[in-house]
Amino acid sequence: MSSYLITGAGRGLGLELASQLSRRPRSEVSFVFATTRTTVPDALKSLIESSDGRVVHVPLQIRDRTSIERAVASVSDKLEDRALDVLINNAGVMHFTPDGIANMNGLREAFEVNVEAVHSVTSGFLSNMKKGGEKKVINISTTLGSIAYSPTYAMMPIPAYKISKAALDMLTVQYAHELGKDGFTFLAVTPGWLRTDLGGDQADLSVEEGAKATIDVIFNNGHESNGKFLNIYVPGWEKPRGVNNNFYNGKEVPW
Amino acid sequence: MSSYLITGAGRGLGLELASQLSRRPRSEVSFVFATTRTTVPDALKSLIESSDGRVVHVPLQIRDRTSIERAVASVSDKLEDRALDVLINNAGVMHFTPDGIANMNGLREAFEVNVEAVHSVTSGFLSNMKKGGEKKVINISTTLGSIAYSPTYAMMPIPAYKISKAALDMLTVQYAHELGKDGFTFLAVTPGWLRTDLGGDQADLSVEEGAKATIDVIFNNGHESNGKFLNIYVPGWEKPRGVNNNFYNGKEVPW
Ligand SMILES: NC(=O)c1ccc[n+]([C@@H]2O[C@H](COP(=O)([O-])OP(=O)(O)OC[C@H]3O[C@@H](n4cnc5c(N)ncnc54)[C@H](OP(=O)(O)O)[C@@H]3O)[C@@H](O)[C@H]2O)c1
Ligand SMILES: NC(=O)c1ccc[n+]([C@@H]2O[C@H](COP(=O)([O-])OP(=O)(O)OC[C@H]3O[C@@H](n4cnc5c(N)ncnc54)[C@H](OP(=O)(O)O)[C@@H]3O)[C@@H](O)[C@H]2O)c1
Repeated sequence: MSSYLITGAGRGLGLELASQLSRRPRSEVSFVFATTRTTVPDALKSLIESSDGRVVHVPLQIRDRTSIERAVASVSDKLEDRALDVLINNAGVMHFTPDGIANMNGLREAFEVNVEAVHSVTSGFLSNMKKGGEKKVINISTTLGSIAYSPTYAMMPIPAYKISKAALDMLTVQYAHELGKDGFTFLAVTPGWLRTDLGGDQADLSVEEGAKATIDVIFNNGHESNGKFLNIYVPGWEKPRGVNNNFYNGKEVPW
Repeated sequence: MSSYLITGAGRGLGLELASQLSRRPRSEVSFVFATTRTTVPDALKSLIESSDGRVVHVPLQIRDRTSIERAVASVSDKLEDRALDVLINNAGVMHFTPDGIANMNGLREAFEVNVEAVHSVTSGFLSNMKKGGEKKVINISTTLGSIAYSPTYAMMPIPAYKISKAALDMLTVQYAHELGKDGFTFLAVTPGWLRTDLGGDQADLSVEEGAKATIDVIFNNGHESNGKFLNIYVPGWEKPRGVNNNFYNGKEVPW
């Protein structure tokens, strides 16, 4: 019976993760804390209403330490003598750079949202999570952040996104090395190329498929996987396929 | 007869690179533009005075676009109808985090100086360098930025530095992919663990050894190495050695 917190749960992958987790048996999932930075979008509102109290909205400005402290307090309150088990750092931004890397857009914001905020949120929840049973932190990364894979994605004009996600991977590993000995498991997980606002219409997988496969990775990987960068597994996608020759083989992604 | 510009040339590796380059034959090195952000330290002053006009000081605030534009103009002026051949992005910062990654120091500044400023300086010099013969950009990275090597360096409490240098490596590769077709060569080079203010007294190599080996990498790698992350080669250091089991085998460093 684990509790989950998901950042950026108002739409896209975050919302779908919240939805699917809330439909697992109560023996597996107690609460899903769905955070958004602003108002609660209708889709999340309906999810909360139909969740029998299991999906709880938490306002969270991931770049603001005070807001993080407030979110930690409200989660602690709700969990009473229990702790948060799984933190999913999902919120992320991607900027396009149409006219060449010299005119790169959004590098600063990509660092702030995709790396610094992940650090702030994670560090904010650490002392609470230390008291928990599972101590799992999932950082939603992407194969686009793999420097080893970068030749494959050379034509995708999103350098700031790639750079920030490579930095996120190193952040994940640094946390893993230091806190692994305290029982924590830090994973970087690539959820697949998904049809969301960020992924666009041409993406390989529906957000439902991506969220399902991401939850599989979270459920199937314990402390032995601490510090790994993991691909989802989607049957039929073991080998390169689709517009971008992506594959979802459930294996480790090279850095 | 190539011209070089080195950021952070007032001390440490940058100063020594400037010094050694200025002692190469004029057939190899025409000018060395040594940039500093503030005043000219005495050691650089003497180097300039003894260089017979080959070492030229250029004031450069690497985080300030206007300052970069001014530096580009002053370099263009000096080179007249020629262009800058080799840009060495050497300036860098490293913050210690003594009390755990949750209290990480300097992540923002590390991103600003080690990544964003490298991007700003590089993009600023691009149109000038496009007219040049060599079109080489050297980003001074470190094996500490290798995620693959990170277990080896787990005990070194400098997470912001490691994270920013992983991001720098991805930045380097993004530039390499895009501008390789225009004849540019972008390299990430690790100069070895050197006895400088940053490296400390216990480091493996003197700054002279590190600068010499770094210059070897720059001279020996042409366009075929575009996008690579290269280790220096130091005779006697082919195999792991010293306090940190470092090695300097002249090969590619895994990401
Ligand atoms: N879709 C893909 O193909 C794909 C592939 C690989 C990895 N990913 C990763 O998966 C994660 C979710 O992506 P997605 O496809 O669901 O994207 P999305 O549909 O664009 O949703 C992005 C989410 O991030 C939140 N967010 C963005 N900026 C924020 C900020 N400054 N503060 C707080 N929240 C912020 C958004 O909140 P608001 O609603 O308030 O804007 C939203 O919930 C991201 O980390 C992304 O990098 C996606
Ligand atoms: N030493 C090593 O063991 C080692 C190993 C691997 C990689 N490296 C890399 O080698 C490069 C040089 O390091 P080093 O050992 O020579 O370090 P250092 O002795 O500490 O010198 C750092 C240099 O960077 C400049 N710098 C720092 N912050 C700056 C800023 N905000 N704006 C402009 N310049 C700034 C400094 O200029 P000021 O004098 O004005 O402060 C100085 O010239 C760095 O990129 C470092 O990461 C060093």
